[in-house]
Amino acid sequence: MDILERGSECGPCREMEFYRLTEMPSPFSFRLIAADGAARAGEMTTAHGIVHTPAFMPVGTQATVKGVHHDDVRASGAEILLGNTYHLMLRPSAERIAALGGLHAFMRWPHPILTDSGGFQVMSLAPLRKITEQGVTFRSHIDGAMVELTPERAVDVQILLGSDIAMQLDECVKLPAERSEIERAMKLSLRWAERCKRAFERAPSDRALFGIVQGGDDRKMRDESARELVAIGFPGYAIGGLAVGETQSVMLEIVAATAAALPPERPRYLMGVGTPADLLEAIGRGVDMFDCVLPTRNGRHGLAFTRFGPINIKNAHHADDPRSLDAESRCPAARDFSRAYLHHLFRSGEALGGTLLSVINLFYYQDLLAGARAAIAAGRFADYWAETMEQWKVKRDFRGDND
Amino acid sequence: MDILERGSECGPCREMEFYRLTEMPSPFSFRLIAADGAARAGEMTTAHGIVHTPAFMPVGTQATVKGVHHDDVRASGAEILLGNTYHLMLRPSAERIAALGGLHAFMRWPHPILTDSGGFQVMSLAPLRKITEQGVTFRSHIDGAMVELTPERAVDVQILLGSDIAMQLDECVKLPAERSEIERAMKLSLRWAERCKRAFERAPSDRALFGIVQGGDDRKMRDESARELVAIGFPGYAIGGLAVGETQSVMLEIVAATAAALPPERPRYLMGVGTPADLLEAIGRGVDMFDCVLPTRNGRHGLAFTRFGPINIKNAHHADDPRSLDAESRCPAARDFSRAYLHHLFRSGEALGGTLLSVINLFYYQDLLAGARAAIAAGRFADYWAETMEQWKVKRDFRGDND
Repeated sequence: MDILERGSECGPCREMEFYRLTEMPSPFSFRLIAADGAARAGEMTTAHGIVHTPAFMPVGTQATVKGVHHDDVRASGAEILLGNTYHLMLRPSAERIAALGGLHAFMRWPHPILTDSGGFQVMSLAPLRKITEQGVTFRSHIDGAMVELTPERAVDVQILLGSDIAMQLDECVKLPAERSEIERAMKLSLRWAERCKRAFERAPSDRALFGIVQGGDDRKMRDESARELVAIGFPGYAIGGLAVGETQSVMLEIVAATAAALPPERPRYLMGVGTPADLLEAIGRGVDMFDCVLPTRNGRHGLAFTRFGPINIKNAHHADDPRSLDAESRCPAARDFSRAYLHHLFRSGEALGGTLLSVINLFYYQDLLAGARAAIAAGRFADYWAETMEQWKVKRDFRGDND
Repeated sequence: MDILERGSECGPCREMEFYRLTEMPSPFSFRLIAADGAARAGEMTTAHGIVHTPAFMPVGTQATVKGVHHDDVRASGAEILLGNTYHLMLRPSAERIAALGGLHAFMRWPHPILTDSGGFQVMSLAPLRKITEQGVTFRSHIDGAMVELTPERAVDVQILLGSDIAMQLDECVKLPAERSEIERAMKLSLRWAERCKRAFERAPSDRALFGIVQGGDDRKMRDESARELVAIGFPGYAIGGLAVGETQSVMLEIVAATAAALPPERPRYLMGVGTPADLLEAIGRGVDMFDCVLPTRNGRHGLAFTRFGPINIKNAHHADDPRSLDAESRCPAARDFSRAYLHHLFRSGEALGGTLLSVINLFYYQDLLAGARAAIAAGRFADYWAETMEQWKVKRDFRGDND
């Protein structure tokens, strides 16, 4: 794999190459530090650094977290980023990124990176997709070319990108769905899991491949999927196919059942979830990792997550408000700029508004999870959860703010 | 003026209030440090800090430099920002900004600010404008309301904003234009200069109002305008009505003649100019201050200014180029990110691309002028100018880059 030998300028990448050249054992590992009920605090070690769990991964779809400089993503406390295989394989292409030293070097993010398999976004973004036993064929939304994504190709692409954590290719069905359809996709995902694991044997030993539990909103099928995946054996497991149309209570029931069916010594990743409330609920049910576009997407649309609940900064009553969003925030933008100024930026269509709110939200998510980790370690997660939700209600005392 | 007594949280604003309360003499001053031929290096002192000249002022149209965080604007070396009266008076309004502590506090830029009078943008942006002796009436491009901007109102707005340097209202005509039309606008601008100066007597004593020389491309009229303005008496003079359709050589001839007609002990500000080459040409003719949207506007469109000339990062041949734009730049973005990555951001429509190139260009402009200041102080401005232009040609050796 000569692309893996190319020198990168970033320290951790050089370090990773050192591991490879000296045939050191895989540095990927996970250890539990504390448990509090079902909630867990842990530490995941990758070639590019340590990730403290529960962890929130900002989404860097096209090798950038939309509108936010990497320095701010890092300053928010993010220890790991998510990259989207679907986007990156189409543009600028996995081969190009590999030739430029891999995704870490390409985007200058020397910290851990997880990539999805591309499957979910093929289903949601690509026109003319067709799923067979072999894989999924789709038309690129960029240039119209027909592209095939097999389990083997999904793994190859992620090896080329240099992801610390790669995901198996799976098929995710929208809910509600027929039981037969859920079962078909779940079983196909299991067969693809095996093929992905085999394909991943070619990956450098410091990388990890996670399996993905499917099974829709059916607990029995979730159990079967989890059991079979564990039999195949992965260093970590994701819960996929949720937040795709079901109610929050159904989602949380499935999360609880699936987490309980997974081995405690492996990290558990709930894909594509969610709101701050979702995160606390899922942590309370034993989830260790999350990714979601909400903090940046909502930020770009004027919604700020704060300790006092969400605030829609575009509402007219902020126009004269000299207060910051949160004078005690760790985030400079939440502390320094007035609501009036942030409101003005949105009203004027200035990009800085979306950038500042995205940064504010990334800080909020990281602080929420740092608080959860500390609470779990102190055996008071339930209290932390209740206090956090209580404080979100403060917003209602703001001048008419019911965003 | 009770709005001026409102406390602001920023140190320099508090300081400014202290000056006011203790009736200290005006802190606005300008002193020449060095001259080298017609080129000058100087120091302008304002209530919010010192500005070294020749100075480049980034344009913060709507209380933000488009797409760039203030911290990056400051890090680039900018000592003074320009704010646009036209935009700010329409949204969020001068009264609102005053109530929020003035423009420095509103946007959290505790350093010097110059505002234009709004006149130029009324001419270029507002529909249905009508100019009379009294002032200019126009329809707001935001809500369609009819708005009147008189010399007195232009000054009032700038007092409300809290600008360290305010500009007189003037009328700028597009070139080419009839001699009679140029003369009419020049003479009207002189009468408005007098009215502005009178209106500005109400301003706190630590602020400055600059007069603006008009007269189109007619040297005689420029001389008359300069002579009459100097007779009225201002702490600084701008050269307006250029870069509005004339050739560069005509512009530079008028700049040289007008600068020579202005008192050497006052700062000279060439409005709305220009490219890096324009700046060096104008500095060589005795100009001290500049503002222009080029570094940020071009940055958003993919054009980077570098020591080796302009580079259009969207060109296909950058897609695989691992080199940074300038490995020795003081700007982290110019040093750290590869051309391939910057190219990818533009190709993918990611906002971070425009932000990074805007920052790179702001650093470039500031470094260009810092180099000019040092060269003037060392008596080698002509060499610096020649060397800089020589280096711009390096770009031609890049792989086919003829952007």
